[in-house]
Amino acid sequence: MTRLALIMAMQVEAVPVIAALGATTVPPPTHLGPLPGRLYQSNRDGVDVTVAVNGIDPRHGVANIGTQPAALTTWATALHIQPDLIVSIGAAGGWAGRGAAVGDLVVSDGPVVYHDRRIAMPRFDDYGVGFYPSLPANRLAAALDAKLGTVTTSNSLDETDDDRRMIAANGGDAKEMEAAAVAWVAEMFGIPFVAIKAITDLVDSPTATADQFDANLDIATARLARAAQDLISFASATPLTDFGS
Amino acid sequence: MTRLALIMAMQVEAVPVIAALGATTVPPPTHLGPLPGRLYQSNRDGVDVTVAVNGIDPRHGVANIGTQPAALTTWATALHIQPDLIVSIGAAGGWAGRGAAVGDLVVSDGPVVYHDRRIAMPRFDDYGVGFYPSLPANRLAAALDAKLGTVTTSNSLDETDDDRRMIAANGGDAKEMEAAAVAWVAEMFGIPFVAIKAITDLVDSPTATADQFDANLDIATARLARAAQDLISFASATPLTDFGS
Repeated sequence: MTRLALIMAMQVEAVPVIAALGATTVPPPTHLGPLPGRLYQSNRDGVDVTVAVNGIDPRHGVANIGTQPAALTTWATALHIQPDLIVSIGAAGGWAGRGAAVGDLVVSDGPVVYHDRRIAMPRFDDYGVGFYPSLPANRLAAALDAKLGTVTTSNSLDETDDDRRMIAANGGDAKEMEAAAVAWVAEMFGIPFVAIKAITDLVDSPTATADQFDANLDIATARLARAAQDLISFASATPLTDFGS
Repeated sequence: MTRLALIMAMQVEAVPVIAALGATTVPPPTHLGPLPGRLYQSNRDGVDVTVAVNGIDPRHGVANIGTQPAALTTWATALHIQPDLIVSIGAAGGWAGRGAAVGDLVVSDGPVVYHDRRIAMPRFDDYGVGFYPSLPANRLAAALDAKLGTVTTSNSLDETDDDRRMIAANGGDAKEMEAAAVAWVAEMFGIPFVAIKAITDLVDSPTATADQFDANLDIATARLARAAQDLISFASATPLTDFGS
């Protein structure tokens, strides 16, 4: 492992990770066009680490969350950095009914799926869900003191009845807004992928997701900062084929 | 107008357009990585026309429909071709209750929106909808014998109650699966954008969307092939500032 790319959505999620890694801003690859993302780099334990953050939407003044910026940022990062491993890392929702608590860390286990691409035509139904591979990573999960779980992606913060049906069909331990798009691009490049998600909110709580997100973001981002450091220590000493068993 | 890019999702939509324009396959820009799309080019009436189709998903064997491939294909096409105008052209659903009939052509009027990005946090709500600009194009619509209407995008073929609520909030005359992502990338590049959509199905019909889509696709794609030819004739003689009044 010589090059690692961490793909993140929001600056507020990324700041503690960037600080923990001592990463510094690097110029964007302007030959790849007016990309929305920002790049930060660090070398730790012999690993070149790039943190790519989706950037700010200039018109609305908020972070470029969601799958369309995630796809572009991952594409540009894969092309520019040629990483050995692409990691979608960030905040996510979990379900108390599936054993989750705020601050838990989840490492992707099995395919990463969408729960908001419903296309009821033959073969398009599976295409919509995606089922993008993630690297077997049970040893990584143990090293990070994380659970293994299914990561499921949509472009909405809420969970509708349709979402619930899709999530029930494919399982779901961490619900977030980017991982499937990142995994899709990683698969096209043939680069191994894993998602690492810290639980900020419980989808099955009576408190609104947005309120939980605000209240718990500091807990989750501190957890992510520690996870990023532990990931690099683990990756510097472990071939990708030994991330799982 | 010297360079025009037509962004299309499905090969089955694109084939009649490619044939009508006499466009031929050109090599993909491999320096931009393993892109999913395919490129076709033609020169007609002094306009260099590129048709970029989202390509086939290798694992599921179906067209790369939806917003994530549309964003990547548009980004790569904008970078590679540097077009003067980017057009999202393809099939869409309409509503009989809003006056639509199968085979109608709709040119985007006002902002292009998402109806499946629900993010209930301040400013993120508007970010989710997007409101990406489209070029004022009432004169183009008249030249194409098309209606003007609001184009609204999601990653699902169906329409849920939540979708209906979002569509009602922002209007909606053509419901499809790519335009907002194409418009988002076009805006980042500062390239004017317009959507041209042929109605294949009526969302408020009792017949399932997928069944209508299959039954009416030939009608819609023939309409798109004629629209592409008329668009080029119009664009060759009309500055972008005169597409609308």
